Amino acid sequence: MSKGAEAGAGVVARRGRPARYSQDDLVAVVAQVFLERGYDATSMADLARASGLTKSTFYHHVSGKEQLLRLAVSRALDALDGVFEEEARLDDSPVHRLERVLRRTTEVLLAELPYVTLLLRLRGNTEVEREALERRRSVDARLAQLVQDARAAGQIRSDLEPRLVTRLLFGMVNSLVEWYRPDGSGASGVGHGSRDDEIVHAVVELALDGLHARRG
Amino acid sequence: MSKGAEAGAGVVARRGRPARYSQDDLVAVVAQVFLERGYDATSMADLARASGLTKSTFYHHVSGKEQLLRLAVSRALDALDGVFEEEARLDDSPVHRLERVLRRTTEVLLAELPYVTLLLRLRGNTEVEREALERRRSVDARLAQLVQDARAAGQIRSDLEPRLVTRLLFGMVNSLVEWYRPDGSGASGVGHGSRDDEIVHAVVELALDGLHARRG
Repeated sequence: MSKGAEAGAGVVARRGRPARYSQDDLVAVVAQVFLERGYDATSMADLARASGLTKSTFYHHVSGKEQLLRLAVSRALDALDGVFEEEARLDDSPVHRLERVLRRTTEVLLAELPYVTLLLRLRGNTEVEREALERRRSVDARLAQLVQDARAAGQIRSDLEPRLVTRLLFGMVNSLVEWYRPDGSGASGVGHGSRDDEIVHAVVELALDGLHARRG
Repeated sequence: MSKGAEAGAGVVARRGRPARYSQDDLVAVVAQVFLERGYDATSMADLARASGLTKSTFYHHVSGKEQLLRLAVSRALDALDGVFEEEARLDDSPVHRLERVLRRTTEVLLAELPYVTLLLRLRGNTEVEREALERRRSVDARLAQLVQDARAAGQIRSDLEPRLVTRLLFGMVNSLVEWYRPDGSGASGVGHGSRDDEIVHAVVELALDGLHARRG
């Protein structure tokens, strides 16, 4: 994408009206199309149409759909990396770091829902997809390391295998993309009726303390 | 599918050799094709080819791909329904029933992996898909009811919303389809290295007691 597009593509035709159109706007529209049609099945013509930009403007700024996919999944990956970067700067016990990473990861998922959803659906058929999956694996590995550290410190139970725990925790968090809707309606017409902060709280509490009523 | 196919389609050509070919064999092959290509993109010709049956045998027994999808997802749904049927016959406290249902549901998922995976990927574009999704929602509702009962009995914590808990629990269990491989290799070349019974144990323990090391 050219410098001009990154700074906002300027005055372009959209629904017949001139409008400022930033790269973020474009990536948001494109992510929706990828989610609805699937990345493989989406053509540049589909994206140009959905963008509302004139063809010449669209093709001037966009070299291919791979470039747009990279921008979209980078929104998710940069935010997830950010969670661990913040954490690495704090001096705290492993279990508290684990708890905060779970909380922040869930918040990122809710805030960047379409981009995380796209990331989780990648198949790895292209170079851009494989790069993104590699970055995703490195996020998984950092969570696994935190689980391992908390276990070594005796702060979490030692009877569950850390890699398995990591997969189950991220499995629970990532499952949000299947049913969470920002308006609380839930997927398939079954409401979840929960606010974002309730969801984040439930994930962290379930993961650390489980469902059992506390004794005493 | 005709009665003959249900009882085993009889002697048919497969890889040039005559072989007994049961309905279960056919459904297993078909489920793999649906998973690899996606249900919408799979044609009857794809299925006929993959079946290894002669065209005339295949088309004699199979009226359409909807019929095969129904058979495949019914394997998952019948097994999941069975978990709750077993449970309904037992007289036990709600939290023990909840624990057993989590355990058995996870076991069913591991045992019927391709069929559950197919079920979880349905989009609801056809009547067969919508019927299956309706049955899936009724499984969700039965788990939600168990969570509600255990909560009403004061056996699980009351600060987490039951529908939200249900979604997170099934989210964790269902996430297994993303990474579990029967040979322990895990998806994307990252091994999970865990035996089935370890996985089932970890799901139940995490859900009920969480990660924290026990005090005392």
